[in-house]
Amino acid sequence: MKLVKMLVNDEPRWGILKDGKVDLLKKAPYEEIVESGERVDYDETKLLAPCDPTKIVAIGKNYYDHALEVNEPIPDNPTIFIKPSTCLNVHLGEVEYAPLSKRVDYEGELAFVVKKTAKKVSAANAAEYILGYTCLNDVTARDIQKSDAQWARGKGYDGFAPVGPILTDEVDPSAGIEISTYLNGELKQHSNTDKLMWNIPYLLEFITECMTLLPGDVVTTGTPAGIGPMERGDRVEVRIEGIGSLINVIK
Amino acid sequence: MKLVKMLVNDEPRWGILKDGKVDLLKKAPYEEIVESGERVDYDETKLLAPCDPTKIVAIGKNYYDHALEVNEPIPDNPTIFIKPSTCLNVHLGEVEYAPLSKRVDYEGELAFVVKKTAKKVSAANAAEYILGYTCLNDVTARDIQKSDAQWARGKGYDGFAPVGPILTDEVDPSAGIEISTYLNGELKQHSNTDKLMWNIPYLLEFITECMTLLPGDVVTTGTPAGIGPMERGDRVEVRIEGIGSLINVIK
Repeated sequence: MKLVKMLVNDEPRWGILKDGKVDLLKKAPYEEIVESGERVDYDETKLLAPCDPTKIVAIGKNYYDHALEVNEPIPDNPTIFIKPSTCLNVHLGEVEYAPLSKRVDYEGELAFVVKKTAKKVSAANAAEYILGYTCLNDVTARDIQKSDAQWARGKGYDGFAPVGPILTDEVDPSAGIEISTYLNGELKQHSNTDKLMWNIPYLLEFITECMTLLPGDVVTTGTPAGIGPMERGDRVEVRIEGIGSLINVIK
Repeated sequence: MKLVKMLVNDEPRWGILKDGKVDLLKKAPYEEIVESGERVDYDETKLLAPCDPTKIVAIGKNYYDHALEVNEPIPDNPTIFIKPSTCLNVHLGEVEYAPLSKRVDYEGELAFVVKKTAKKVSAANAAEYILGYTCLNDVTARDIQKSDAQWARGKGYDGFAPVGPILTDEVDPSAGIEISTYLNGELKQHSNTDKLMWNIPYLLEFITECMTLLPGDVVTTGTPAGIGPMERGDRVEVRIEGIGSLINVIK
């Protein structure tokens, strides 16, 4: 099933995407999927991020090749940080260049959306807590991230978390799916989720040992090597096999 | 005015505390204060945190003496980090000792609650964005904070942000108010808000240059020297002049 969230008559609505049409739901899909009987055209200009996060939990250095490129040691545990919900941005949304930064980077990532309240979940039960998988761009003001040491500001600007547009349970990241980031059409990042140092069930156990995840929260799994800067006017695309493309323009 | 939030007939309600009684409000006090005409007794066992945060934005190292005690350099800018809303805890609430930690610390802090949406606010206009001031305990699993380098996990456990119980606009932190933390009745931290390296108007400008603060969000201003560990069964109190006491027990 491919879920999308979109504006319909100025109301945010969830729906199921099929053959270019969207079957709208009566309510958000966390507890159950209830179709409303309404069907609309899939319209990219009205798409919202397919989630309702109280927080976005992000993982640093989850691909060896990225840890190497930033000259950081491989940590013993996943490094987690929080992007606040005010970071949320949409497919085709503009990402505003952080005014105090001289280097704003893309970081293409596979993310998942939480289906039900997750507290001290064991990895073995992870699947029942995941609504689906989507694309996320962990936009980062690299200079601010480095000078602050804590990452909350460099990664926390409004709009620095484009998510979507499609949320699907039809892929299996543990089996390996391709992830790529394109900047103005040029391939910049290319890897496969089979290279994740910590897989998704483990991440869910690790995070929820500490903090409860709520329905609609987003967890993003880290970026592979190939990070780099964007300029105003650039077009960035995160493309994940079996999910689709998340495209944004830097303003 | 002293605002409180409490359970009344199992419903969360805001009210104005006066002479041991609470005049209940019709709705949350962000846009306007509208009394409902109902009056109840002030009951400490039913108090909630006087806020509705989508995020808690916290400041590291905002008192010189604390920066010195943790052997960290004085940063050029405030260090900001996020405690997710799942950290929220109440006056008299139990703080669960983080199971993976061997050292869970208190950090007594002055916090404020955001009154209206704050985006790129200048320090000169800060006052109109602040609903009031309250006590916060920035509970920290010190060993996890250090080993992770990023602070999101060590400071992000469920219940690691007791807030309240009283939110007041009757104090002026810029004029200097006393802040103290007691562990089992023994004074452990004692300072004054006139020692904040970055004052509250500056913090509001600094944070909202980056991320929008929403009504009900919490900003906590950093802890003075004297941090230290708590054990299960300990009683910790953050006391701020003109505001009151926030008391919690470690479980």
